[in-house]
Amino acid sequence: MAKPRQARLTAEEVGLLPELDDESPTLWSNQLHDVARGLLTSAVRCFASNGFHGTTTRDIASVVGLSPAAMYVYFPSKERVLFEVIRTGHERVLEHIREPEVEQIESSADRLAEVVARYTSWHARHHVIARVCQYDLAALSVEHYQEILDLRHQTNVVFRSAVQHGCDDGSFTDVDVNRIARAMLSLGIDLVRWYRRDGADTPDELGCFNAELALKLVT
Amino acid sequence: MAKPRQARLTAEEVGLLPELDDESPTLWSNQLHDVARGLLTSAVRCFASNGFHGTTTRDIASVVGLSPAAMYVYFPSKERVLFEVIRTGHERVLEHIREPEVEQIESSADRLAEVVARYTSWHARHHVIARVCQYDLAALSVEHYQEILDLRHQTNVVFRSAVQHGCDDGSFTDVDVNRIARAMLSLGIDLVRWYRRDGADTPDELGCFNAELALKLVT
Repeated sequence: MAKPRQARLTAEEVGLLPELDDESPTLWSNQLHDVARGLLTSAVRCFASNGFHGTTTRDIASVVGLSPAAMYVYFPSKERVLFEVIRTGHERVLEHIREPEVEQIESSADRLAEVVARYTSWHARHHVIARVCQYDLAALSVEHYQEILDLRHQTNVVFRSAVQHGCDDGSFTDVDVNRIARAMLSLGIDLVRWYRRDGADTPDELGCFNAELALKLVT
Repeated sequence: MAKPRQARLTAEEVGLLPELDDESPTLWSNQLHDVARGLLTSAVRCFASNGFHGTTTRDIASVVGLSPAAMYVYFPSKERVLFEVIRTGHERVLEHIREPEVEQIESSADRLAEVVARYTSWHARHHVIARVCQYDLAALSVEHYQEILDLRHQTNVVFRSAVQHGCDDGSFTDVDVNRIARAMLSLGIDLVRWYRRDGADTPDELGCFNAELALKLVT
């Protein structure tokens, strides 16, 4: 859970906070310049810590030793940085639950368990960027928001299909597919609120646990 | 889910946003002056919309037609307003799930279902203050944070006891009580992220649905 810190953190403090260390920096496209990737990593920490409206371009730039003006060489606005962060997070988790080896699992129960486990452990491993992906959506432009909604819809479809598949082949009991899928997504997403790397559960343990819960909800 | 609005909202816009209408204004103590209650209601909307660090005392005061200086007559700081909001939210939901009529339910399953249903529907009815209670914790002072932690601990205890009771009397299967209780809390809390009064589910419908899910997790 969040530690109290009361005052808005300075960019330097944000750069040092151990609870903001996660695997988010591994997610950026290799096609981006090193500096752009550094700015995105810095932005994730700033947004997760102080919120989009509590973060300035100066904060984001100064963590990597740049002036605000230098940031604009890479991103035309703070909103554009946020969009790049949120888009990347949504695309990566969607890729992760849609990998061919998941889709090829024949047993409906095993496939649903794998989807839930992957979704959950991804959110634990990348809990800092995942928090920004969930909490700062409203700060996106209308256009960018629509793009993200589409990615979220595709993510929902993976969950709904995994549940529906088991209902259709008789592996699962007859359930309200949309609401059950939403509950499974909730179990994965809610951990971005409290997950800490130094806590009791590893990402994979949490993934297994939520996968077991998911199966209980449908059988 | 949050609608996009990109720019930080002005206090006037925050005052008009229909998605910020919920039953939070009914929660404040009658012992508080009308103006203080108005300030708290305004603060909930501002914090939920722009975050604690994106909100100024001017914002909070101006929604009720006051100057920032006039706010200090009632609350000595913005943090103190936040604490009053977060404390009230936590106390109210704890009272609601701990009412004598819940504790007197004899059947373990019925009692757990009632706790989960109440917790969930409370979060839907008061989703705006509930969002502030979950997302802005880190902005509290260390002392205030400790008080809130204690309330959260008491809330956890209600859930854990309800689960443990059913394990002890053989109504529930042997489960990991703490983790199962955490999952049930997650299902209730996560809705503050996406709940809208104009959506498909009423608070009571969501409560019933989550209560059914909770029983599936333990039987």
